[in-house]
Amino acid sequence: MSNSTNSPISHNVYFEGKVQSLGLETAKGKATVGVMKKGTYTFAASSPEKMVIISGIMEVKLTADGAIKKYAEQEAFDVAAGTSFEATCNDDVAYLCYYG
Amino acid sequence: MSNSTNSPISHNVYFEGKVQSLGLETAKGKATVGVMKKGTYTFAASSPEKMVIISGIMEVKLTADGAIKKYAEQEAFDVAAGTSFEATCNDDVAYLCYYG
Repeated sequence: MSNSTNSPISHNVYFEGKVQSLGLETAKGKATVGVMKKGTYTFAASSPEKMVIISGIMEVKLTADGAIKKYAEQEAFDVAAGTSFEATCNDDVAYLCYYG
Repeated sequence: MSNSTNSPISHNVYFEGKVQSLGLETAKGKATVGVMKKGTYTFAASSPEKMVIISGIMEVKLTADGAIKKYAEQEAFDVAAGTSFEATCNDDVAYLCYYG
């Protein structure tokens, strides 16, 4: 993972650039907006996360319970702290992720 | 404006990094998701644009008719091709912009 934090907005790059995000503050605390290209990615959540789909469809496997579910625009899922999730995208997906 | 396009996801940087966006393809065509820090910015639209607010509140002045209006989460506004708009953010704002 690489990120540039001396800029007013942090830009985070994962999986050789196939997942990228931009940091922001929201009324609900720290968040990122990001884009995922086609592929399958595993993310570990050190703090609780709430993922909201902005564009596209994300198939999610929560490692906490193994459940697999598809999420479309405006749908959200929670990731417990200390767990991880596997995201599969067949097309570009945009998301908003709240931390904490 | 600077952007890195040899990456799988284009990352666009405007106004000394206070506005940044990430490119993606959507069911509705090309789009970007982006973040604006506190400030006032003017954007010119070479093609029609639809701006959707994802987080925060954006005060928008459409130069086409001078109307000034605030847009909150899930609210959207259209920018005609060949016109511009002035966006004022008092806090971080995240947006999704559809082109064409």
